[in-house]
This record gives sequence, C-alpha cells and structure tokens, in this order.
Amino acid sequence: MQQQEQQQGGMKVKVQRFGSYLSGMIMPNIGAFIAWGIITALFIPAGWFPNEQLNTLVSPMITYLLPLLIAYTGGKMIYDHRGGVVGATAAIGVIVGSDIPMFLGAMIMGPLGGYLIKQTDKLFKDKVKQGFEMLINNFTAGIVGAALTILAFYAIGPVVLTLNKLLAAGVEVIVHANLLPVASVFVEPAKVLFLNNAINHGILSPIGIEQASQTGKSILFLVEANPGPGLGILLAYMFFGKGSSKSTAPGAAIIHFFGGIHEIYFPYILMKPALILAAIAGGASGLLTFTIFNAGLVAAASPGSIIALMAMTPRGGYFGVLAGVLVAAAVSFIVSAVILKSSKASEEDLAAATEKMQSMKGKKSQAAAALEAEQAKAEEASELSPESVNKIIFACDAGMGSSAMGASILRNKVKKAELDISVTNTAINNLPSDADIVITHKDLTDRAKAKLPNATHISVDNFLNSPKYDELIEKLKK
Amino acid sequence: MQQQEQQQGGMKVKVQRFGSYLSGMIMPNIGAFIAWGIITALFIPAGWFPNEQLNTLVSPMITYLLPLLIAYTGGKMIYDHRGGVVGATAAIGVIVGSDIPMFLGAMIMGPLGGYLIKQTDKLFKDKVKQGFEMLINNFTAGIVGAALTILAFYAIGPVVLTLNKLLAAGVEVIVHANLLPVASVFVEPAKVLFLNNAINHGILSPIGIEQASQTGKSILFLVEANPGPGLGILLAYMFFGKGSSKSTAPGAAIIHFFGGIHEIYFPYILMKPALILAAIAGGASGLLTFTIFNAGLVAAASPGSIIALMAMTPRGGYFGVLAGVLVAAAVSFIVSAVILKSSKASEEDLAAATEKMQSMKGKKSQAAAALEAEQAKAEEASELSPESVNKIIFACDAGMGSSAMGASILRNKVKKAELDISVTNTAINNLPSDADIVITHKDLTDRAKAKLPNATHISVDNFLNSPKYDELIEKLKK
Repeated sequence: MQQQEQQQGGMKVKVQRFGSYLSGMIMPNIGAFIAWGIITALFIPAGWFPNEQLNTLVSPMITYLLPLLIAYTGGKMIYDHRGGVVGATAAIGVIVGSDIPMFLGAMIMGPLGGYLIKQTDKLFKDKVKQGFEMLINNFTAGIVGAALTILAFYAIGPVVLTLNKLLAAGVEVIVHANLLPVASVFVEPAKVLFLNNAINHGILSPIGIEQASQTGKSILFLVEANPGPGLGILLAYMFFGKGSSKSTAPGAAIIHFFGGIHEIYFPYILMKPALILAAIAGGASGLLTFTIFNAGLVAAASPGSIIALMAMTPRGGYFGVLAGVLVAAAVSFIVSAVILKSSKASEEDLAAATEKMQSMKGKKSQAAAALEAEQAKAEEASELSPESVNKIIFACDAGMGSSAMGASILRNKVKKAELDISVTNTAINNLPSDADIVITHKDLTDRAKAKLPNATHISVDNFLNSPKYDELIEKLKK
Repeated sequence: MQQQEQQQGGMKVKVQRFGSYLSGMIMPNIGAFIAWGIITALFIPAGWFPNEQLNTLVSPMITYLLPLLIAYTGGKMIYDHRGGVVGATAAIGVIVGSDIPMFLGAMIMGPLGGYLIKQTDKLFKDKVKQGFEMLINNFTAGIVGAALTILAFYAIGPVVLTLNKLLAAGVEVIVHANLLPVASVFVEPAKVLFLNNAINHGILSPIGIEQASQTGKSILFLVEANPGPGLGILLAYMFFGKGSSKSTAPGAAIIHFFGGIHEIYFPYILMKPALILAAIAGGASGLLTFTIFNAGLVAAASPGSIIALMAMTPRGGYFGVLAGVLVAAAVSFIVSAVILKSSKASEEDLAAATEKMQSMKGKKSQAAAALEAEQAKAEEASELSPESVNKIIFACDAGMGSSAMGASILRNKVKKAELDISVTNTAINNLPSDADIVITHKDLTDRAKAKLPNATHISVDNFLNSPKYDELIEKLKK
C-alpha cells in the first residue's frame, strides 16, 4: 500500500512539474497579455474609446508579440537566453504559416528550439579549436534556428493548426451544448492539487485568447479564475468554522477574493474534503450563469481576483460576469454551510490540513532522503580552499569571443590536471554570483570587481598564453 | 597632467560601457540574425534556391522577430525578464507605426520599458498589502506596457522613423560619393580601443540591415568586419617582427582571420602605434574596392571571420568581397612592413604592449582602489553565520503569488528587527544560486532542495502565519 502511495505521489509531482512548466511559459509574460487586453478593451470598434489607428496594434501583438515571448520563455527555461533566441526564431515558422494566433505552436517550438541548440552545443563541447568558439557558437545558433524555422513552416505548423482547430471546435461544442459547467468536476479538484496555474495558463488561456481574438471575449478565461467558489467556502468557515480556521478565514477571504491568491483556500478544503463538492457546485453554477448571460473576458484575468476580472471585462459585459461570480459564491456558501454544520467529527485544525496537503503532493520520496545526505556533505567545504573552488569563469565584454577562447585553454589544462572544476565564460554583465574565481583581461578587471566584489579576481595580459594559468593549476593541485 | 589622464581614462571607460551596452542588445541575438541571413540568402527571388513560400518568412523575421528580441534584451539588461517583457511590449508601438525595420526604435523602447517598470516597482515597494503582490505586479506591467506602446505609436515611432531615414540617407550619400573609405580613419583607431562591437553591432548593423532588407545586401556589414587589415599586420610581424611578437603572430593570424577574434591583433598595433596607419590604409583600400565592385553582405558577419563573411555573401557577390579583403590585407601588409623594417627602437614586447593597452583603457581609477578595500572587508565573513546571511528568498511554483506574500510578511519583521537582509521571492525554477536561506511551502521544499542543495532550506506550512518566521528573526538577531 505504502509503495503504491509513493508511486501515486511521484506521479502527482511529475504532473505538477509538467503543469508548472506549461504555465511557466505564460505567467512570466502576463504583463504583455494584460497590456494586449487593455488596448483591446479600449480601442477595438466595440471598445470604450474606439480608435482605428490604435486598433492596428491589436493583431500584431497577438500574432507576433505574445507567441514570440512564449516561445522565447520556453526556450529560455531549457537553455537560458541562447535557448530563448533559437526557440523564438523557430516559432516564426509556425506563426507565419497560420491564420490563427499560434500559442500552442509557440509552446512547442520554444522548448524544442532550446533543447536542440543545447544538444548541438554538447556535440561541439571541447571539440572547438581555440579562437573559433564565437564563430561556431553564432553559426550553430543561426543554422539550427533557420532549419527549425523551415521545419516548423512546412511540417509542425500545419499539424498544430489542425490540432488547434479541433480543440477550439471541441470547446465550441461543449459551450453551445451548455456542458461547460461539467468542466468544474475536473477543474476544481485539480486546483486543490496545485494544478491551477497549469490549467488556467497552460490550457485554457491559449484557446481562450484565440476565441477572444475572433469574438472579442472568451468564457474560458472564467473557468478557473472565478473567485466565487473559494469565497463561498471561506465565508462558510467564518460563520460555521471553529478554532483557527474560523479566525483566519476573514483574512484569507480578502486575500483570495481581492488579492486573487486562490492557493490560500486549498487547505480549508483539505480540512473537510467533502467541501470539494461545494467548490464543484459553485464552479458549475457560475459557469452555467456565464453561459446563460454569454459572459466572457477580453484576456486572462491573472491573478483570479475580482479586480482583475473587472479590468478584463469587455464594455457592457459586467452584469453577466458579476452574476456568475455571485451565484458561484452563493451556491458554494450554501453547500459548505450544510457540510460544516452537519459534520460532528472534531475539527481538523489548519496545520494538520496543510500536513495532508503535503502528503497529497506526494512529498515524502526517496529523493528527499538522498538530497538531505548530499547537502550535509556539501556544507563541510565552506572556506575558499582549493576543494571549495568549483567554478572558474572567464569574462569579457560580450562574453562570446576572447573569454570563450581563454576558457577553452584553461579547460584543457584543468582536464589534464584531472581537477573537477567547471571552466566557463560569460559577459561581465552576466557574471553569476556563485563564481569562485573570475579571470578577466587586465583592462576589464575593474568592471568585473565592481560586479562581483566577493569573488577572487585574476587579471591576465593576454588570454592566448598567460603564465598565470599554470600558476593557478599548481595552486589548485596542492 | 596625471589628473587629466585619469579623467580621459574615465571617459573612455564610460564610452566603452555605453558601447558594450549598445552591442549587448544585438550580440546575444546574433543567432537569429544569422538565421534570417541564411533564409534570405537561400530563398529570396535572387537567392540560391528561390522559394515563394519560404520567402514569406523574410519580412516578419526582420519586422517583428529581430526588433522584438533586441527590445526584450535591452529591457532585460535593466530589469531582468520583467524589464524584457515590458520593453518588448513597448517596442510593438514603434514597429507597427513604421514601414522600415525598427532596430533603432527597439534599442530605445527596450531599455526605456525596462527602466520605467523598474521605477514603478520601486514606488510600490513595501507598500503593497499582503496577498495583493501578484495583482499589483501583473497589472503594473500591463498598464506600463500598454501606456508605453501607445506613447511609442504616436510620439517616439515617428521621431525615430525620421532620424532613421536621415541616417540612412546620409550613409547613402557617403557611399555614392565614394567617401566610405574615409570611415576607416575613425573605425580602425576606435577598434583598438575595444569599441569594435559597439561600432559594428551598435551602429552599423541596424542601418545595414535596413539597407539589406531593401536591396538584398549592404556594404556597411563590411566596414568593421573586414579581417584584411588585421591579417596584413600579423603577416608583417611574421616576417619582420622580433621575439615573442614574431613567434605568436602565426597563431594569432589564424585565430583572427578564420576565428574572427579581431581583439587579438590590437596589442600588436599598440606595440608599434604607427601601425594604426597600416590598419587605416588597409581598411580604406578595402572599402574602396568594395565600393568599386558594389560588394555587400546579406546580414552581419559575426564574428569577423572570413568564413562568416563568405556565409553572408549573396549569390554572385564573392569576387567583390574577396577582392576587398585581399586588397586590404595587401595594403596593410606593405605599410606594416615599411613601418616595422624602418623602426630601430628596441622592440617593445607583447606583455608591455598589453600593459599600455590597459592604461589606454583608463584603468587606474580611484574606483579600483576603493573596490580593493571593500573586497578585503567582505572576505572576513565567509562562514554561514548570521552576519553572512544577506539573501533570504521565498520560492513557490510561479514565484508570483504566495511566495510574494510570504516575502512581504518576513520583510516587515526583518525591517522591525533592523536587520540588513534582503528578502525577495521568485519561482523555484529561477532560484538564484547566491540565496543563503530559501523558504518554501512544505510541499515544494523537495524541488527547491533539488534546485539549490547548498542553501539552507526552511519549510513552512502556511505562508500567511508561520511560527518559523519569528524563530528565524530571533536566530538572526543574535
């Protein structure tokens, strides 16, 4: 039983990790989505201040800006800026070949571009002759980027386009058959498993934004973001809860409803798992109300606060949106009240509930035990002695030319001396704070010191052949 | 005199820093430029494999992809990803309003967007009620982004467009009057001052790429990138040099001509400052040859290696490009040979020359002395004791909601306890390696430990009110 529970926990963490990966491509760019939403809500013909000129901003933002930011972020998650550049370049291939906003395509090409350039660099690692690092680096990125753009244009784009249209058609059918409320049966429980970001931004937003670009709004932005269900539950605890859950409920309700941090009501459900029914009932009745009033938002409301919902409500759409939120809160409150009133068992307090939340998250895994052992070992070598030198960084102006050359020279010497030290190069502006030794050309050492005062700095006259390399190796061998 | 020399040095460092800031927006994205160059060279009607469909990629890449990557990078240099998102969003305003590729506009809007959102966040710092951090963060980015887009569209775009057209017209006049060779008088000396990246990518590339998008190629990509002048000088050292400069010249010539690392020949000029005349003569004659043969490249050749030049040469353009490189090398070689043969003074060796390069770089400034003092003080506190705790980071899944709330709670307590410790929040995936203490919700601590095994991890049940905050403050007060 215990082994099966751990597998289940491992699976959950994997789903979470994938989910947070999906939403990780969207959420950091929410500011651009909101800017698009504001400009759309204000200046499209049906907007507050219709403006033909500013309306010309709407399509390029949703066709190029948002998908390119998503693809860049997806590539960056895999292989930093270099992965982001190749990911964004590759995404142009799916964007140009399609007549709908290519979010799904960008979420595929971004990581794919990041992954392929990372693998390409591994192929070339330690095989590039000194002085040719920049040439190889620039042209591998250019060639992989160009090839992927062409592949995306001919092969991946059309496939994603079809998939996208199927998905959108499926959602259309569900909405028209008034079946959307059924979605709450999946969405509300998944939220309590911390999949709220993944559902909202990983799945619903990309399809929703496509609908909004055609019809000016989309109900999909309200499926997960509706703060009604959570409010109902927290209000019920205010009246019928006991102990710390009753006393903390008001503060939590404000942070949830106005601040939009839905995570705060999850432990309140876990204290009384039956309350998931209240969330489902509230969510479903809200969606039914939205469907009846044909309500929708212009863009994603993030976070799911009533303020964000109002900001993203199109002109003339307030009644439907508010009605759906209030109905959801009322239904959820009534169901919660019945469950809380009828429950006799001594009330599980908040801390125990969060403890359960942790086990539901499949937290106790072998990985945790292994990590703790590793950390203990790592803490012994804290002084800056040869053992503690793990990272030597060459830095120059752009971090692409001469520093790459110096790094490959020293890397060979480190390898020959069989020292387990990483030797890399970067631009001075991007010097990572965990560099132990920073080697710069004499005329840039001041800037490097200003950037990283605590590291040990070594100045060389000439990256090509400085006597200081061998001195350093000798010191590190002792 | 000494004081005047230091001022001059300070000025040079400032120019360099600004120069590297300009090129810092272009160089990390060179892969995308090269991808564009490859697709253009291959598939435009005058290309190697004319292809009407793939030709549709060329304009969106140069109109949206490249300027948005530049603007993003400009914003990111100021305020990380958040600055990049607002910078890229703002750049859409100048892009949509213009009929030419808006590189100059992107290089303005990117940093401007990053700077304004950074100042906005400072305004809100410590003033946001707990639980509202995500709402404020998302909407400040959205509103600043939208407002800047509109400002760019109406005001900044038109100004940059006029400036751009003036600049392009000026360059056109110089090229047609065969005056471009005169540019070498400024470009070659500036290169030896490490302004090569700034000139090539900060100034010439943006104008060159606009010309290339209209005429299929631009001579401006050859002004700084031509490896001829450097090759001539290094060849002359091979035959007429002495000591270490003679022995290292062959290796340097290969790295310079094929690897494209021009910085490697700069010290050889400083050993014999008169050699700058050889570089100017070589550069000018090369530009004259390029002008006569109407030579040009499709996109920036980065680095300035003969291989990169050939890769970016349009079909049918090889003779003119090669002729310009060879003429430049020959002229530079002859002039260098005369200078080296006629010079009697004992040959300054390479190390002394690089020493001079450092003083030319204005290196010896008060800042250097101040920094050394500061670094000595910093090295005393290396053990993980309260004094050495500078950075406490709250982390959660997206790094925007609950962790921001926890961070602001502890920040208040740290402030009250008058402890000089920074308390911030981020996504687990972006945990910075210099975090001393990482605080996560219990169900995410494993992921945080896996990401940062060496930091001290604290698990809390509930970000809102955990007893561990006060325990931590007590420990840090001791």
